Parts: sequence; structure tokens; C-alpha cells
Amino acid sequence: MREAYHVELEQLADKLAAMSVQVADAMERATQALLDADLAVAEQVISDDAKVDDARAACEEQAYALLALQAPVATDLRTVLAAIHAAESLERMGDLALHVAKAARRRHPEPVLPEQVRGYFAEMGQIAVRLARQAEQVIKTKDVGAAKELESDDDQVDDIHRHLFTVLMDREWPHGVAAAVDVTLLGRFYERFADHAVSVARRMIFVVTGRMPGYGPGDDEI
Amino acid sequence: MREAYHVELEQLADKLAAMSVQVADAMERATQALLDADLAVAEQVISDDAKVDDARAACEEQAYALLALQAPVATDLRTVLAAIHAAESLERMGDLALHVAKAARRRHPEPVLPEQVRGYFAEMGQIAVRLARQAEQVIKTKDVGAAKELESDDDQVDDIHRHLFTVLMDREWPHGVAAAVDVTLLGRFYERFADHAVSVARRMIFVVTGRMPGYGPGDDEI
Repeated sequence: MREAYHVELEQLADKLAAMSVQVADAMERATQALLDADLAVAEQVISDDAKVDDARAACEEQAYALLALQAPVATDLRTVLAAIHAAESLERMGDLALHVAKAARRRHPEPVLPEQVRGYFAEMGQIAVRLARQAEQVIKTKDVGAAKELESDDDQVDDIHRHLFTVLMDREWPHGVAAAVDVTLLGRFYERFADHAVSVARRMIFVVTGRMPGYGPGDDEI
Repeated sequence: MREAYHVELEQLADKLAAMSVQVADAMERATQALLDADLAVAEQVISDDAKVDDARAACEEQAYALLALQAPVATDLRTVLAAIHAAESLERMGDLALHVAKAARRRHPEPVLPEQVRGYFAEMGQIAVRLARQAEQVIKTKDVGAAKELESDDDQVDDIHRHLFTVLMDREWPHGVAAAVDVTLLGRFYERFADHAVSVARRMIFVVTGRMPGYGPGDDEI
């Protein structure tokens, strides 16, 4: 019985790791769609999002079944609850990639981003994708050290995001209000994506240590 | 034993209801601070946010203890899991009120909002606060009908939010890029606050019906 239970727990972790890969891929493609004004890639991200939602539902159902049938305690209970939270964050990361793709589609064939800020988004996109792939590793290895590495990558995203605002707020911003609104929202999508990746990693630390390093995907107010 | 368990479950629901009141009050004050450029009120919201975080931690700990010690099944299990999700959404609502208050503080003594959009925020603020208070009622009564009412209030917030973008995107927007960036982010904070209130209500429907009407606090990409 307990053996079967641990097999199921492993399957749940595998599902979460697969979700991390899904949302990393989604954000990679969404960023490509954004930078290259590539409509076909944007459409692919948009239609693939339903798979992320399904994966989340499957994770949650398996977690519920585990709780109801096995009544786990201690670390096993923490693992199942961390999985429920992680699935929620990963679904949200998928939504944020979807928002980026929809922005690319909305402005197509025009590029969304003025050339001046393109580099910032290329960099935020790269780090965001790396964070999602690191989250996959943390889920697989439950390595506390690796989880902490995510925090410094997240700090980089926050730095770029803040810098973006100084660029936007500059009186010399020449690209108009509509572009500023797009850049504001897109910057926030990347920043939140990174926050949620960190949140997934923190939940995994909780599984290992039993102590939660801060609650939830906290974010900057800008 | 089962008696003590249901008492604890009631206590958990009471804690969530109290959190709903906390975040409703926070958003009410944050909106006042925003509309009146009232620094003292903004500071109060900012310092009170730690209480919301503490309340969330307390909810989560009680929920974990219930799962570990009582191993609930069926509706009781769903109730505890819904409580964990609701606590997460409520904490997030507190963060969003905090962001509004911080925007008011950042621009003080200047008003954040151009007069032209002030009315939209007054209205979004009112509905957002009402949603949080309705969430409290749904938690207390588990009334599926009341939960559905929240959805139509949320639609109103979405409508105002979308209209705000048409105002911003108008070539005649005369208030400059910095104001547009503030309005963009603030609009999003209200919209997300409303989404999370709906998410709390949906979780309560799940408790009663065992069926989840859509996952998570889904949002518009603008």
C-alpha cells in the first residue's frame, strides 16, 4: 500500500515537472512571437494553453485522490500540498505566456515593442524561461541549493523590470502612450512569471525543510 | 473527536471570513488614498498588510493541522483544500490593495490619477470592495447563488477596465506617458483583485457542489 502511494507521489512530481517544461516552452515561444512579430508562433502558444490548464486539473485531481485515499502525514502531506500550490503557480505562468502571445497577435503585423526596449524583453524572456526550467529541476531533485539560485535570477528580472520603468518615465520617451501601455503590461507579465517560478521553488524547499521561506509569489508594486 | 473537528473547520471558515473583511477594508482605504491623495490612509494600508500575511499563515497552518490530524474525506477534505486556496487568493487581494496604496504614496502630494479617469477608479474601487464583502458572505453562508452574483460584478470591473484602455489608447490622451503607466498598472490591480474575489467564491461553490466552475483567477490579457 505505502509502496503504491510513493509511486503515485512520484507520478505527481513528474506531472509538475512536465508542466514546468510546458510553461517554459510557452514563454520561449511567446517571447519569440513578441520579438519577431511571428503570428504563427503566437497562435501556437495561444492554442496550447488549454493543455496547461488540463495538466493543472490532472495534478489537482491526483493530489486530492492521494489525500482522500492515503491520508498522508508529515513530509508526504507537505509534498502533496506543495504540489497543489505549485500546479496553481505553473498554470498562472502559462496564462502569463498566453498574455504575451496575445499581445503579439493583437499588434501583428506591427511589432509590439519599440526597438529601444527590445533588448530588455529579450533578456527578461531568456531569464524567465531559464527560471521555469530550473523549477523543473528543483521539482525533480528537491535540491534546496538550486531553489535558492532561482531567487538571484528573479532579482535580475526585477532589476530589468525596474529599469524599464525609468526608461518609460523619461520625458524623452518618443514612442507614444499606446506603446508605453503595452510595455508596462508586458514588463509586468514577465516579472510575475518569474515570481511564480520562485514560488514553485519555495514550495519545494518547504517540502524538504518543513519551513516556508516567505509566502506566495510576492511582487513589486511596479 | 468528529465534533472537535467540525468546530475547528468552523474556526477556519471564520478566519477566512475575517481575512475577506481585512482585504475589503484595505481596498476601501487604498481607493480613498488614491482618490484623495491621502498619505496617512495610504500608510495605514501599507502597515496593515502584514496582518493579512499573518492571517494567511494562520489559515494555512490550521488547514495543515486538520489534514494531518483528522485525515478528512469527501466534503470535509474539499472544504479544507478550498480554504487553503481561498487564503492564497485573499492574501493576493491584500497585496493588490497594498500596491494601490503605494502608488498613492509614491506620487504624494500629487494625485496619481488625471481627473478624466478618476470616476472609473471610484467605481472599480466600489465594486472591488463589494466583491470582497460578498466573498465574506459566501464563505459564511456557502450560498451558491450569492457566489454566482459575484461573477456579474466582476464582469462590470472587466468592462470598466477595458473601457479604460480605449481612453488610454486614444490619440488625444493629454496626460502624458507617466500618468498612462500609472493608470495601466492601477487598472490591472483592481481587475486582478476582482478576479481573486471571484476565485474565492468559486472555491466555495466547489465545496458545496464538488464541481469547480473553471480554474483559478483567470484574467483578461489587458
